[in-house]
Amino acid sequence: MIDPHRYCVIMCGGIGSRFWPYSRTARPKQFIDFLGTGRTLLQMSYDRILSVVDKSRILVVTNSDYAPLVKEQLPDIDDANILLEPARRNTAPCIAWAAWHIAALDPDASMVVTPSDHLITREREFEDAICRGFEFVESNDALLTLGIQPTRPETGYGYIQVGSHTESENINRVKTFTEKPDLSLAEVFLQSGEFFWNSGIFMWKVQTIMDALRRHAPDISAVFDRGCESFGTGIENEFIRENFPGCMGISIDFAVMEKARNVYVETVGFGWNDLGTWSSLYDNSPRNKSGNVAQNCHLLTYDSTGNIFAVKDDKLVVVDGLKDYIVADAGDVLLICRKSEEQRIKQMVNDARVNFGETYL
Amino acid sequence: MIDPHRYCVIMCGGIGSRFWPYSRTARPKQFIDFLGTGRTLLQMSYDRILSVVDKSRILVVTNSDYAPLVKEQLPDIDDANILLEPARRNTAPCIAWAAWHIAALDPDASMVVTPSDHLITREREFEDAICRGFEFVESNDALLTLGIQPTRPETGYGYIQVGSHTESENINRVKTFTEKPDLSLAEVFLQSGEFFWNSGIFMWKVQTIMDALRRHAPDISAVFDRGCESFGTGIENEFIRENFPGCMGISIDFAVMEKARNVYVETVGFGWNDLGTWSSLYDNSPRNKSGNVAQNCHLLTYDSTGNIFAVKDDKLVVVDGLKDYIVADAGDVLLICRKSEEQRIKQMVNDARVNFGETYL
Repeated sequence: MIDPHRYCVIMCGGIGSRFWPYSRTARPKQFIDFLGTGRTLLQMSYDRILSVVDKSRILVVTNSDYAPLVKEQLPDIDDANILLEPARRNTAPCIAWAAWHIAALDPDASMVVTPSDHLITREREFEDAICRGFEFVESNDALLTLGIQPTRPETGYGYIQVGSHTESENINRVKTFTEKPDLSLAEVFLQSGEFFWNSGIFMWKVQTIMDALRRHAPDISAVFDRGCESFGTGIENEFIRENFPGCMGISIDFAVMEKARNVYVETVGFGWNDLGTWSSLYDNSPRNKSGNVAQNCHLLTYDSTGNIFAVKDDKLVVVDGLKDYIVADAGDVLLICRKSEEQRIKQMVNDARVNFGETYL
Repeated sequence: MIDPHRYCVIMCGGIGSRFWPYSRTARPKQFIDFLGTGRTLLQMSYDRILSVVDKSRILVVTNSDYAPLVKEQLPDIDDANILLEPARRNTAPCIAWAAWHIAALDPDASMVVTPSDHLITREREFEDAICRGFEFVESNDALLTLGIQPTRPETGYGYIQVGSHTESENINRVKTFTEKPDLSLAEVFLQSGEFFWNSGIFMWKVQTIMDALRRHAPDISAVFDRGCESFGTGIENEFIRENFPGCMGISIDFAVMEKARNVYVETVGFGWNDLGTWSSLYDNSPRNKSGNVAQNCHLLTYDSTGNIFAVKDDKLVVVDGLKDYIVADAGDVLLICRKSEEQRIKQMVNDARVNFGETYL
């Protein structure tokens, strides 16, 4: 029996520029079958929440450009459940809209907010964690974030330090949020047992997050409070088109989580990866016997290992003497880049824009 | 005034497997605009002989599969001047057919035989050399080959050693033909001044080559002598379809030039390259300021030099940390290979066949 007050908000507006050219402005990472499983990352995000939240209460928030992709990939979702942002304003305005929208439908609702482009491998453990989280936020005035048990000294993630007092099974008060550490600090974090990866998955009652926004981000909450009579009505979209672009672009972490005092973390270990980089995709994909990862292509390798090939349409890729590279072929763009230099890809995208306009973006 | 007894035979049946996947079975190297000049290698071979041999006496010998490509690329050539081999049998049977064919049209003819897939940069010097060569073979019972003044200790070419006695301006008797040397031997060759690159361009009277074939390759000459009444008539093609495949596959060098005693070399220096390898294509193509060669593509490079990119359709190629590689993208096949390992490409083509059949050949 699925609780009728429980909602899910899938955030689906990212543009995925770190995976250019495989991920393009017109079809970002969450809309791609990134692991070659037959389901896109968005579809997998939807699938895994279905046992916990009824599909009538799953909302997708995305940029209006991506409405056709969302409808194509999630045909079971009602149009009314797709919230189309008229502008990109980071996660705080996105979550605020979803909260005011849900509160208009059900003032007693609780909600889980999840990215659409992460990988979770152990779905049963994910379900259990979400159910425990709902129970906690429904009986506490709590902003809950999911913290992932770290398995390596990862320098690409933010960390959450837990306080010593345990509130409930696997749930502690948050002591601090930290930025991405350097390697030596990440090793200290890993050994301490007090630090967890910040997953970007949040849970709360709608009233709790609305109160928190009113206290810590009044510029944003004021916009939605002003429009509160339009939510859940036929004029909601018009109100959003006019007022959403006026919100400042800010993350929910920065706007609320790092400021509020009622912030808790549920520590979990369900095989999570944010797939934020080619290297993390390589680490999470099955390798062939020569130690290479091939996405959607045939591969013949000679003296080549540690590479990831993301190539479309069953192309044959023949490679000699390549170690630890990203090879991404998007039809009109071919990228060959050392994995160690993948932070350059943003610069490359920019250089492509400077030299060739929007053609290859 | 162009001499009416002078013929040209352009050999155009090669499959160019060393340039796979850019050169494919369906469109080998000679049919590609390899240097991005707007003319294919075949068209350039045709263009450069036009001032020496009338177009009515230029013959193209090719595999019957390539007849449509030849007609498309050389629309001025009469169908009767395209000799279609029903099977691949190397250069000796190809040249024999051309000789018997021309002899039926003009028993006093002389001919130049040239590959269709080589690069010659100084066309005026080429014309002068061909004219001198015609004059020599027309007044001597000579099998003449063109030897290129070497400019580097190239290990990829065969060499011709000249004898000390000069017959005519730049024309000497051949002392030996040698196989591809190793580097130290190639350096000795270069310093000696006696060794020239074997260009694969030959000149002779048709009667001289027919006699030489009768003496040194009687199995081949017997086939054509048997059909001599059909050459130049409506039944020539039928005779060839039935008898050509029975010829042994052997090169003219091996069948005749290395055996005959009346072999001469005209030493020339007209900027020749056989474009037999990616490295030689790299060496002969204009480099951009980062030291890379881009064929038909846009290029953004980072820490990358010494590479050759042969990519179709104005694709954008973005490359980080690649030095001295071949990157060839043929739409359904992508090859990335160190230039130093390009001799592996034949093996790769074979592996592609073993694994995927004819799909990618």
